[in-house]
Amino acid sequence: MSVVVIFTSRRTPAHGDEYEALSARMVELVQDHPGFIEMTSVRDPRTREGITVAYFRDEESVRAWKAHVEHAEAQRRGIAELYEAYRVTVASVERDYGSTPDEGSASP
Amino acid sequence: MSVVVIFTSRRTPAHGDEYEALSARMVELVQDHPGFIEMTSVRDPRTREGITVAYFRDEESVRAWKAHVEHAEAQRRGIAELYEAYRVTVASVERDYGSTPDEGSASP
Repeated sequence: MSVVVIFTSRRTPAHGDEYEALSARMVELVQDHPGFIEMTSVRDPRTREGITVAYFRDEESVRAWKAHVEHAEAQRRGIAELYEAYRVTVASVERDYGSTPDEGSASP
Repeated sequence: MSVVVIFTSRRTPAHGDEYEALSARMVELVQDHPGFIEMTSVRDPRTREGITVAYFRDEESVRAWKAHVEHAEAQRRGIAELYEAYRVTVASVERDYGSTPDEGSASP
């Protein structure tokens, strides 16, 4: 089964334009990354808390994305000034269902 | 390792008060549920898209929560009128790290 990465963060109030540009660039990059399947991202502008959920084919593609040079630089920048707090969970998908199921996702 | 449940949804524009009450009740209930660890929830009020990430001790506690009578009724109500779309992913946590690590979570 696929691997899901959950990235939870709270943005700092500053550096909004830089954050938006860097975030857009990472979305662009990850979509070309081998093994990337899809992602969903939500941030509440009032609390600046956000959750991004990204699905990858396997553990290898997750590790390669974490180590990607431009992404690694963005991670450093994020930790240094763009996020007040962040958390990453990597998990193996056991089942996946809903009102708009994806091709290839299994219902329980 | 623990099990993470990712609930992604887009709210309908209607039934806002009912949704808020039901959502608050579910947060209250799940916190007393055996095996529940913690949760984070974000919704963007502009797009009505939300992501909730909830951590449980094991698969058994996830299944029991899904089957909980009051929660099951809320799921039916949500599917019927409160959500335009929803998706549930259940996954086994492989690793978990960040700027504010939890007790018991392992860094890679």
